[in-house]
This record gives sequence, C-alpha cells and structure tokens, in this order.
Amino acid sequence: MTEGTSRIEAFSDGVFAIAITLLILEVRVQHAGVEGSLWTGLVALWPYYFAFALSFFVILVTWIAHHDLMRLVRATSRPVQLANGCALLYVTFIPFPTAVLAANLGGSEASTAVAFYCGTFVLGSGAFNLLVAAIARGQLCRPEVDAQAIGRIRRGYRITFVIYLAATVIALVAPYVALALNVAVRLHLLRIRYQLAPSVPTREDQPTP
Amino acid sequence: MTEGTSRIEAFSDGVFAIAITLLILEVRVQHAGVEGSLWTGLVALWPYYFAFALSFFVILVTWIAHHDLMRLVRATSRPVQLANGCALLYVTFIPFPTAVLAANLGGSEASTAVAFYCGTFVLGSGAFNLLVAAIARGQLCRPEVDAQAIGRIRRGYRITFVIYLAATVIALVAPYVALALNVAVRLHLLRIRYQLAPSVPTREDQPTP
Amino acid sequence: MTEGTSRIEAFSDGVFAIAITLLILEVRVQHAGVEGSLWTGLVALWPYYFAFALSFFVILVTWIAHHDLMRLVRATSRPVQLANGCALLYVTFIPFPTAVLAANLGGSEASTAVAFYCGTFVLGSGAFNLLVAAIARGQLCRPEVDAQAIGRIRRGYRITFVIYLAATVIALVAPYVALALNVAVRLHLLRIRYQLAPSVPTREDQPTP
Amino acid sequence: MTEGTSRIEAFSDGVFAIAITLLILEVRVQHAGVEGSLWTGLVALWPYYFAFALSFFVILVTWIAHHDLMRLVRATSRPVQLANGCALLYVTFIPFPTAVLAANLGGSEASTAVAFYCGTFVLGSGAFNLLVAAIARGQLCRPEVDAQAIGRIRRGYRITFVIYLAATVIALVAPYVALALNVAVRLHLLRIRYQLAPSVPTREDQPTP
Repeated sequence: MTEGTSRIEAFSDGVFAIAITLLILEVRVQHAGVEGSLWTGLVALWPYYFAFALSFFVILVTWIAHHDLMRLVRATSRPVQLANGCALLYVTFIPFPTAVLAANLGGSEASTAVAFYCGTFVLGSGAFNLLVAAIARGQLCRPEVDAQAIGRIRRGYRITFVIYLAATVIALVAPYVALALNVAVRLHLLRIRYQLAPSVPTREDQPTP
Repeated sequence: MTEGTSRIEAFSDGVFAIAITLLILEVRVQHAGVEGSLWTGLVALWPYYFAFALSFFVILVTWIAHHDLMRLVRATSRPVQLANGCALLYVTFIPFPTAVLAANLGGSEASTAVAFYCGTFVLGSGAFNLLVAAIARGQLCRPEVDAQAIGRIRRGYRITFVIYLAATVIALVAPYVALALNVAVRLHLLRIRYQLAPSVPTREDQPTP
Repeated sequence: MTEGTSRIEAFSDGVFAIAITLLILEVRVQHAGVEGSLWTGLVALWPYYFAFALSFFVILVTWIAHHDLMRLVRATSRPVQLANGCALLYVTFIPFPTAVLAANLGGSEASTAVAFYCGTFVLGSGAFNLLVAAIARGQLCRPEVDAQAIGRIRRGYRITFVIYLAATVIALVAPYVALALNVAVRLHLLRIRYQLAPSVPTREDQPTP
Repeated sequence: MTEGTSRIEAFSDGVFAIAITLLILEVRVQHAGVEGSLWTGLVALWPYYFAFALSFFVILVTWIAHHDLMRLVRATSRPVQLANGCALLYVTFIPFPTAVLAANLGGSEASTAVAFYCGTFVLGSGAFNLLVAAIARGQLCRPEVDAQAIGRIRRGYRITFVIYLAATVIALVAPYVALALNVAVRLHLLRIRYQLAPSVPTREDQPTP
C-alpha cells in the first residue's frame, strides 16, 4: 500500500464496512407480515435472510475486487478520486435495492424487483469501468504492473458489464435465473482475480522492510 | 501524513464514511406515497434518488477538501480539534436536510426545503473557515507551505461562504437555481483545489522511505 | 501486524465497530409498550437494556478473539478472505436476533427467541472454525507459532462449537440457563486466550523498532 | 502511537465515529408533532437540534479525552481491553438517552429525561475510572509518564465522577441547571487536559523516526 492511496483506501474500506453492516437494518420481524407464533414469523422472513446474505456476498466480492485493484495503484489523481466516488455511490446504494428485493421475492412483482436489483449492478460495473479507465489513463499503476495486465483487467471489467446488462434483461422474464447468473459471475470473478495475482508481487512475497 | 494528524484524520474519515453511507436509509419505497405497481413506486422516488446523489456528491467533495487541507498540516492543537469537531458536526447533520429536501422536492414547500438545505452549507462553510483559521493562527502548516498559499486558501473559503449565503437567499425565490449554484460551486472547487496541489509536494512526488 | 493482514483487519474492525454500535438503534421508548410516566417506560425497557448489553459483550469478546487470532497470521489468502467474510456475515447479523430477544424476554415466546439467539452463535462458531481451518491449511501463521499451538486453537474452537449447539438445545426448555451458559463460555474464553498468549510473543514484549 | 495500542485505538475510533454520526437518525420532521407549514415543523424541532448538538459535543470531548489517555499508554492488557469495552458500551448507549432528552425537553417530564441523560454520564465516568485504574495497575504507561501524573489523572477522573453524580441529583429539581453543569464540566476538562499535555511529549515534539 503506497502512501499515495492509503487515505482513499481507508475511506473506501469505511464505506464498504458500513454499507455491508447496514443491510441487517432491513431484516425485521414486523416485515414477515404473518400472524401466528414467533417461529412462523422468523421462518416467513426467508426472503429477507436470502437478500441479506446475497447482498453481503456481493459487497464482499466488490470489496475484494476493489482491494485487488488498488493494490496495483501507486498514487491517486482527481479523476481516480471521482471515479472511486462513483463506485462508492453504487456501494452505498445497495441496501435500497436489497430492501426492494427482500420485500418482493416470491411475490407477484418479483421480476420488477430483481430487474431493479440487477440494474444496480450495471451502474456499479459502469463506475468500476470508469475507475479502471482513470487508473490506466493516468498511468498510476506501480512500475511492476505491465501494460498487458492492465489491458486484460479493463477487458475483464467490460465483459462483466455486458453480463450484468444481460442479467437485467433476463430478470424481466426469469428473475431467479438472473440472480443465479449474478452469483455465478461473482464466484468466477473470485477465481479469476486469484489467478491474476501472481503477475503482481503479492504482499506475502514482499519482505517486510 | 505526519503522526500529529493521523488519529484526527482517521476519526474524520470514519465520520465522513458513515454520514455518506447513512444517506441511503432515507430512500424507502413507502416514501413514494403512490398506489400502483412497484415500478410506479420506484419511479415516484426520483426526488429521493436526486437528494441522495446530490448529498453524496456534497459529502464526497467536502471529504476531498478536508483531505487536501489536512495534507498541509503537520500537527493538531486543541483549537484545531474543536474547529474540526464543528466541521464534523456539519457533516453528520447533512442526512437530515437531505431527508427534508427529498420529501419536498417538486412539492409546494420546495423553496423552504431548499433554503434549509442550502442554509446548512452556510453553517458548514463557517465551520471550515474556523478550521482554516485555527490552522493558520497556530502556525501548524508544514514548512514547505508558504504563507501566501495559506492566505489564498483562507480567501477561497471566505468567498465560498458568501456564495453559499447567496444561494440560501436565492433558494427562497428560485430553489432549483440555488441547487444548481451549489453544484456549480463544488465542481469549481474540485478544479481549484487540483490546481492548488502543485504548490505543495503531493504524496506521489515524495519518495516512499 | 504484518502488511499482509492490515487491510483485512481494518475492514473487519470497521464491521465489528459498526455492528456493536447499531445495537442501540433497537432500544426505543416506544418499544416499552406501557402507558404511564416516562420513568415507567424507561424501567419497562429492561429486556432491551439486557439484550443490548449482552450482545455488546458477545461482539466485544468476538472482536478480542478475532484480534488474538489475526495476530498469529502473517498473510491472507482467498480462502481466508472468504472464511473471514462468513465470520463477518455472522457479526453483522447479530443485531437481528438481539432485537428478537429483546422483544420476547419475559414473554410467552422467550424460549423460541433465546433458541434463535443461541442458534446464531452456532453458525458464527462454524464460521470461525472455517477461518481457523483456512489459516492452518494455508500455513499462514507466523514462523514463531508452532503447529501444536494451532492444533490447540482448532480443538478449542471445535469445543466451543459443541457448547453453543448444546446451549441452543437447552434454550428450548430452559432459556435463561442457555443465556447463562453463553455468558459463562465467553468469560472462560477470555481467560483461556489470555493464558494462550505467552506462547506467542505479545506486542508488549516486542521491542518497538 | 505504539504498536501495542494501535488496534484498540482504531476500534475505539470507529465506535466513537459511528455513535457520533448515528445521533442524526433521531432528528426527523415527523417528531415535531405539529401541524402547519414545513417551516413551523423545522422550528418546532429545536429540542432535537439541541440534544443532537449537546450529545455531539459530549462524544467529541469524550473522544478527545480517550485520545489523550491512550497517548500515555504503551501497551494493552486484557483488563484494559475489558475496561475500554465498558467505556465504549457507554459511548454506544448515548444515542438512546439523547433521543429521550430530545422528546421531552420543554415537556412535563423534562426532569426525568434529564436525570436519565445525566445518569448515563455517571456510568460512563465509572467506566473511564475503571480504564484509568486498569492502566495504572498494569503499569502500562510509557516510561516518560511519571507516577505523579497518573495519580493526578486518576484524581481528576474521580472528581468528575462525583460532579456527574451531583448533576444527576440536581436534574430532578432543576434539569436545565444540570445540563449547564454538564457543559461547564466538559469545557473545563478541555482546558485541564490541554494544560496536562506538556508533561507528556506531544506527538508534534517527537521527531518522526
């Protein structure tokens, strides 16, 4: 972590940590909307647990991706600060579509809710594409990161943008397929980014000075 | 980042990160206040999305300004801690006028809501003027920051104070002009502060020891 | 603290700090559900104070345990990031069972509420077992931590898992015994971990370089 | 900041930053409880603004006090972690008595609300007394802090405990005098701690190694 990115990383980490923790505020017994025993109510909340866990997973993977990306960067610039701001706007917005999803899963408006939820990821992916572009254009990568690696990362972010767009369209006809596609993309991203790591000296490899 | 300001920066970063993330708690489907499909409700929430994005932008620019300012400082003092506290009081207050704005945009009380929203920035700008004054009086700037630069910064903060005051008055007769003025000032600030940076050795220029 | 774990620790600390602070949002005078003076209302909130203090204690002990564990680790890996994510999912979930507990303590559904509360700790303990396993398998401990110490830690985490499972079953027949067992386990953990520390050079012992 | 206290300080800073930012969630137009124009509603919220600003000031001064105290400490121990946990329990609790205060200022139950608010500070002061005692008993101060200074600090904390207790009793008969006494004590603490600082090498004085 260079000095040049430490405060932007700390601020971003704070936003990620808060957004991921606020998700629970939407899970409330009153939302179950059923009469009967406490146990019935707790079971009827399954869409809330599902949406909570799904968005937690989404924000966690996004945090890991942000972490992996900023590790390549040696310094920030004004465009990077603004593009990072757009990415964080997306992260702080996530609790709202999560609440919409939870309230409509299994209901008659599920496809609208899932399309809205998936559409959020299209905008978020757009923000991350901006961030990668701002880093690449400003030539802000560490010297050990070669131009090819950056090109591959940019292409990867463009491909995920297209997939998120497709998932949003699919959501209108098959909402649960769209959700599954979103989970699959992120599980795949976790693997890709892991394989990408060796091209950059990881922190573990660096001798602690 | 000198040792002398690291804990005040960490605390401030935390407050900025939380205030910016709490904004989403005000965006709720129930607030749409319309009957009909989920889609109608999500569309009717446009004043909430607008107010959310606007205040996100305001807090982000304020964070960048705070970041730029603290980079000039080598140590804190009790007056700086208190003036910084006033600036943070303003930042934590922002979610409330944002909620007032969202609930009244496009309604009959829009001018009152926008004037209240803009008035908050007058107080906030006052707090930042106090902070700059506390730094300048305590001679707490790093040696490489010359007195002229500090003078220019203080003058800049006084000018924005006057503009925010003017925007609040304008809000009473033309609320949307006042909001546009607020956005314009901040876009301009982003440019000015960027140009100011070269006079101070930026972190990127410093060799990492 | 090695470079390799600093950002995961900072993110985790953020999540712990936010989850522990959100607990208070559930304590509200309206929840008292009694008519009469303010004083009567404040007294009738005792289950809320109790649940608040209990979950605060639980999260604090979990934070200390996480702190003690990460101190043994020299670097992170993808499995550690994911297992740590599961542990944090558990931490962010705690405010919900706490709210359920507070609303039902002393009521006719107390045993369901306490079983749900205790069941959360079973899942949480499972996540921590995953985390310890990911650290041990990846051989990510600092060189001064011998294999025996790790074995002892893993065994300890497995035993607490079984105790939390037992407490959940006990809750169905004797809810207050189950809560007492949970407190007792954590008080004991505080002592055990303290005794474990000497095998690892504690921070106090290290000369500050 | 020694390595030995960095993670406990980071966690505490997080809790302080979140608690101070959550205060705004209690300020809502609906709480005004008046009919009429938006402006009437915003004006009628004065007890909420007052309670918000007062508790902000209280948490800020507490943060500064915590900051000043931890600066004397070279390492943590289990008793310090637990006593610090009690101090943080108090900090996270503050939003609740603040809400009670705001809802009852100027009403018929003001004295109960203020006594409850002031009583919270008695418990908080007790927690800080525990923390100072744990530091002193564990001989965890930096070598440059002499025993006399610690003795003076402990005496100071005991005196403020007695004053907070007195304020709580006074609140039952003269609530606004009790609030004024609380403000006065904190303004005085800000001065005392400032004068105490020279006996300890401040960060500014230390050469950055």
